[in-house]
Amino acid sequence: MTDTLDMCRIDAGLLYSLMETQARYGDTGDGGIDRQVLTDAHRDVRNWFRGELDARGYSVLVDDIGNLFGRIDLAGPDAPLVMVGSHLDSQPKGGRFDGAYGVVAALAAIETLRNEAKTRHLQPSCNFVIVDWMNEEGARFQPSLLGSSVYAGGVTRDFALSREDSDGKTVESELRRTGYMGSDAAPQSDIYLEIHIEGDVKMEKAAARIAPFVRHWGALKLRIEVRGEQNHTGPTPMEARRDALLGAARIITEVRALADKADDTLYTSVGRLDVSPNSPNIVPGNAVLFSELRAPEPEILERAEAELRSALPAIAKASAVEVEIVSVDRRPAGKFDSRLVELTEQVARDFDLPTMQLDTTAGHDAVAVNAIMPSLVFAVPSVGGVIHRNDEYTAPEDIAAGGDVLVEMLRRIDAARGDLDRLGESI
Amino acid sequence: MTDTLDMCRIDAGLLYSLMETQARYGDTGDGGIDRQVLTDAHRDVRNWFRGELDARGYSVLVDDIGNLFGRIDLAGPDAPLVMVGSHLDSQPKGGRFDGAYGVVAALAAIETLRNEAKTRHLQPSCNFVIVDWMNEEGARFQPSLLGSSVYAGGVTRDFALSREDSDGKTVESELRRTGYMGSDAAPQSDIYLEIHIEGDVKMEKAAARIAPFVRHWGALKLRIEVRGEQNHTGPTPMEARRDALLGAARIITEVRALADKADDTLYTSVGRLDVSPNSPNIVPGNAVLFSELRAPEPEILERAEAELRSALPAIAKASAVEVEIVSVDRRPAGKFDSRLVELTEQVARDFDLPTMQLDTTAGHDAVAVNAIMPSLVFAVPSVGGVIHRNDEYTAPEDIAAGGDVLVEMLRRIDAARGDLDRLGESI
Repeated sequence: MTDTLDMCRIDAGLLYSLMETQARYGDTGDGGIDRQVLTDAHRDVRNWFRGELDARGYSVLVDDIGNLFGRIDLAGPDAPLVMVGSHLDSQPKGGRFDGAYGVVAALAAIETLRNEAKTRHLQPSCNFVIVDWMNEEGARFQPSLLGSSVYAGGVTRDFALSREDSDGKTVESELRRTGYMGSDAAPQSDIYLEIHIEGDVKMEKAAARIAPFVRHWGALKLRIEVRGEQNHTGPTPMEARRDALLGAARIITEVRALADKADDTLYTSVGRLDVSPNSPNIVPGNAVLFSELRAPEPEILERAEAELRSALPAIAKASAVEVEIVSVDRRPAGKFDSRLVELTEQVARDFDLPTMQLDTTAGHDAVAVNAIMPSLVFAVPSVGGVIHRNDEYTAPEDIAAGGDVLVEMLRRIDAARGDLDRLGESI
Repeated sequence: MTDTLDMCRIDAGLLYSLMETQARYGDTGDGGIDRQVLTDAHRDVRNWFRGELDARGYSVLVDDIGNLFGRIDLAGPDAPLVMVGSHLDSQPKGGRFDGAYGVVAALAAIETLRNEAKTRHLQPSCNFVIVDWMNEEGARFQPSLLGSSVYAGGVTRDFALSREDSDGKTVESELRRTGYMGSDAAPQSDIYLEIHIEGDVKMEKAAARIAPFVRHWGALKLRIEVRGEQNHTGPTPMEARRDALLGAARIITEVRALADKADDTLYTSVGRLDVSPNSPNIVPGNAVLFSELRAPEPEILERAEAELRSALPAIAKASAVEVEIVSVDRRPAGKFDSRLVELTEQVARDFDLPTMQLDTTAGHDAVAVNAIMPSLVFAVPSVGGVIHRNDEYTAPEDIAAGGDVLVEMLRRIDAARGDLDRLGESI
C-alpha cells in the first residue's frame, strides 16, 4: 500500500476558482447555466478556457469538429499521452457542475502534477492533454457525444457537420460562426480519464464519495415524426381531423408502457416534442418526438424496439396520421477498462474515501472514446441525484475529493509510464 | 325585387390589387404568410394599410388596445355609422386569405360606394368605418378576439394589455414597440359586417358561393399546466420519474375521448403544447396544454368540462405529476342578427349566387362585437375547406362575389338609412 503521506492532493484553490469562473458564462441567475453548444455563451466560456490554457503554456489545439485540446509535453515526444477532460456545453437550463467540473478539474489536476514535479525535481514520464469535447449534451444538435464520437470514429465528420438545430442551423455553420472550426490534428492519446457528477441518489444513499463506472448501458435514441393535417380547430369535423399531436400523445403513452411491462430493467422516455404549428386553435399538422430507450442488457433493448415498431401502425391508423421513425441512434452497451476501475477504487481507499461501483445509463464522452482506448469515468455525488437542472449541486469537499483522486490516479499512471498493466508494480 | 342592373359591383381590380399587396407582408415563400400579431411583419402590413387609408382621405384612428380604424364621413356628423372589417394578423404559418380578405374587401367595398355616389351624384345616408382588429388569431397571445372583445366590453383593457406571449412579452409592451398603442377613441358604430373565408368543405359540397353565419358555437378554452420534475433521462429510475410530458399525453388522449363519447356534437382539441425544457435527454419538468372544447349547445360543453375536470386527478396520480387548469376562457353560444342574415341571402340571390346557412364554430371578431350591436359574418368558400394553412385558397371569382355581396349589402343598408327594420322597404 502507498504511504498516504506521499499522495498528491489537488490544488483545491485553483479548482474552486476555475469552477466559480466558468459558471459565470451562461449564468441564468438562478444558480444554473444555459450554455448550449455553439451558442454565444458556449463560445465565451471556451474562449475563456483556452485563455487559461494558453497563459499556462499549453498548446491550444482545435480540431475540425470543434473539439478543444490543451496539450502539455512534460516527458518528451515519444512518451505516452494521457487525456483528461469532459465538456463545457450544457443543457438548456442546466447546472454548473455537469461537464464543466470534468474540464476544469482536468486543468487543476495537471497543474498540480506539474507543480509537484517542479517542486520535487521529478521527471514525469507521460505527456498530458486536456479536452473539452464539442456537443456532449445533444440538446441543440442530435446525437449527443458528437465531438468525441467523431474523434473515436463512431460517426463521420460529414454527418456531424450536417446536423441541424431546430432553426435549421448546422453544426458546420455554427462552428464557423463561433470560431471553433479548427484545423489542428486531434492528439492521439493512450488513455482517457473523465470525472463527472452522478445524477442518481445511489451514491448518496450508500454514503459513497467516489464511484467508478463499470458498465455503460445501451441506448436507443429514436426520432419519430408524426404527420397529420393542419386545420382550424373550429370548423373541422372530428372525423376529418388528422391530429399529429394526438398521434404523438398515443406514442408517448406507448413508450412509457414499454418500460412498465418490460420483464427486466428498461428506461424509456420522450423528453422532447416539437409540435407544428403549435397554435391553440390549429389542429397540429406535424409533431416530432425524441424518444430514448435505455437498458443494461442488449436483448431488452432489442425486444423493446421491436414492440414499439409493431405498435406504431395501429396508433397511426387510430389517429389518422402517418408515423415514421426518421432516425435511430444506437449506443451499444459496454464495459470501461477494469484496470482503471481498480485504480480508482485503490486511490479512493488510500484517501479513506468510501467507494461503490456504478453503471452509467447516461451518455458520457468516455463511452465514445472507450471504443478506441482504455477509458474511464468516475463520479462524485450530486445532492439528491439532481442533474440537468439549475439546482444541481456538489459540495466543495466532494469537488475536492474527486480532484484528489484524479490527481493521484494520474500520478500513478505516470509512475507506471502509462502502462496500465504495471500499475500494481509501481505503487 | 331589386333590378339587378341597378346593383353595385365591387371594384374587383382594387380588391385583387390590395389582396396581392397585403400578402407580401410576412410572406413565407410557400404561398402562406406568418404574420402573428404585433410582430414586425404585422406592424409592417398595418403601416401599409394605414397608408392606403390615409391616401384616400380616411381618418386613421388607433385606440388604446391597438385596433386600427379608417373612418370616412360621407353623410354628416349625425348619420348612422356602419363598421366593416376583420383582422390583418395571421396564424404562424397561416394563409393569405384568413382575416386579410375581410379588411381589404372592406376598403374596396367602401371605395366602390364612394365612387358610385360621386359618379351618380348620390348623397349617402351613412358614414363608414373600416376596422382591423388587434389579435383575432390568439396564437401568440391568448385569448383570441382580444381587440374586438375589449371594444365590446367582453374583457377589460387591463387584462388584455397584460397578456404574455411564450417569451414573457406583454401585449402592452408589443403595442408600444410596434407603434400601435393609440389614444384615439374607438368609433361607436351601429352595425358591424364582416366577410371571411370558411374553413369547412360544407360550402364546396353544397356548391354554395355565399353563406351567412346564423349561430356561433360556444367555446371553452382551457390552459392546463402539468408540473412534474426535471431529471436526466439516463440515471433516473422509472419509478422516481415525474414526467410532465407523459401527464400531458394522457390529458390529450382524454380530451379526444370526450368528443368520441359525447352524445351530441362536440369538437375537442389540444392545438398547442409547450414542453419545458424540451430536450431529448431530460425528463420534462413542465408542460402547458392549450385545449379547446366547442359545441353548438351549452349543455354539451358543460358536461364535457365536468368530465374533463373529474378525469384530471386520476391522470395526475398515475403520472406522479400535478395538474392544474390555470385559465378558462368561455365564449357563449349565440345568434347573429337575423335581418342581416336575410339581407345577405337576398343580395346573393339577386346576384344569382347560391347560398346556404352555416354556423361558425371558429371565433370571429363579429362574435365579440355581436354582444353590443347587430352584427354578421358571411363566408365565401375556401378550396377544400382549408384554413390556417399556407395553401388556403379562395378563387378570384369567389373573392369578387363576396365583395359584390358586401358592397350591395352596404348600399342597401345605406338606402335604409342604417335602419335594419326598413331594409325590406327600401329595396
